[in-house]
Amino acid sequence: MAHQTHQEAIKALHECMEACNHCYDACLKEDDLNGMRDCIRLDRECADICAYLEQAITRGTPFVSELAQACAAICERCGEECKKHDHKHCQDCADACFKCADACKKLIA
Amino acid sequence: MAHQTHQEAIKALHECMEACNHCYDACLKEDDLNGMRDCIRLDRECADICAYLEQAITRGTPFVSELAQACAAICERCGEECKKHDHKHCQDCADACFKCADACKKLIA
Amino acid sequence: MAHQTHQEAIKALHECMEACNHCYDACLKEDDLNGMRDCIRLDRECADICAYLEQAITRGTPFVSELAQACAAICERCGEECKKHDHKHCQDCADACFKCADACKKLIA
Amino acid sequence: MAHQTHQEAIKALHECMEACNHCYDACLKEDDLNGMRDCIRLDRECADICAYLEQAITRGTPFVSELAQACAAICERCGEECKKHDHKHCQDCADACFKCADACKKLIA
Repeated sequence: MAHQTHQEAIKALHECMEACNHCYDACLKEDDLNGMRDCIRLDRECADICAYLEQAITRGTPFVSELAQACAAICERCGEECKKHDHKHCQDCADACFKCADACKKLIA
Repeated sequence: MAHQTHQEAIKALHECMEACNHCYDACLKEDDLNGMRDCIRLDRECADICAYLEQAITRGTPFVSELAQACAAICERCGEECKKHDHKHCQDCADACFKCADACKKLIA
Repeated sequence: MAHQTHQEAIKALHECMEACNHCYDACLKEDDLNGMRDCIRLDRECADICAYLEQAITRGTPFVSELAQACAAICERCGEECKKHDHKHCQDCADACFKCADACKKLIA
Repeated sequence: MAHQTHQEAIKALHECMEACNHCYDACLKEDDLNGMRDCIRLDRECADICAYLEQAITRGTPFVSELAQACAAICERCGEECKKHDHKHCQDCADACFKCADACKKLIA
């Protein structure tokens, strides 16, 4: 089944969703929010598409390739933004995003 | 704002989401489900991505183009399947899907 | 069908989702983000549950009452937070939230 | 952080989402779909709310209790329906649903 053959992608998507949502939550608790606006926005975009694709794969969607293409682009942009910030939650998030972007690229037909 | 400039796309996405979910619901109440399995599955895929893109546009996502590309492909496939069935809910759904696919294509950069 | 009998609720949910996402987007563009952190977070929570419930109603979910209960509580909390801020997007959002909370309460069995 | 203290619930929600989506996918491939219509519909409802709550917890939602209440009710209803069917995917799904309903009840304030 789809949810078994794509086990590696599901794991990367799940970890990226968690890292982005954790980073979003932690950003909103930082003393100075003003430098974090792009990070907050991109964390949200990235968590949502990763959660979406993960669910879609587990339900056997015929559109893995189309969705993975969008997801890879979003993960990369989020990773690039998070990479700029020294907070541990941002660096961890960047790592998860780049790893997930790689996993998504393998899903593109 | 994004939710104003993209008013036409938002309307098409919303109507497509409603038509697909109505078709999904109606398919699940048909006397004989066996010919409807692809329709049920594609209705779900299409309603979900349309709702997703609609929300993403209203929140000013930077990824309209990437998401619209996936959405256009999914709408087209769903429209092609629904077109095959004589039920009014399927024909209405096919119309909404093709209209939405066109609206999505205009969003692709 | 569900999507016709619940037309009023669908409209209120949709307008609330749009207002919350617009407010979220506009908050992230304000000069000083530091007073807006609860507003940003609650906008997101509220937009997501409104979009979710709207979709669920249109697909004939058997769980309108359970979901409307959660949605009403979230809309109220978001409305109370937005009400505190003078920005037009916050005041408009508060109005949409309270209106949606009322519409949700009518859906609770 | 929320995503650590709620680790048990996140795991149960994730496994339930996967089981429901796998059951939905497998139901749509059964020879005779006509007995599976409630199962297909409830699998979808349950997978969606589990994925939603899982994401909400990882982003530190203030509404864990409200959402868990809806989720517990949906998991129970899905579990009861799946329990009626002998297919392994239905029995596995029922187990995941009841386990998740229990985890959700612990989240209700």
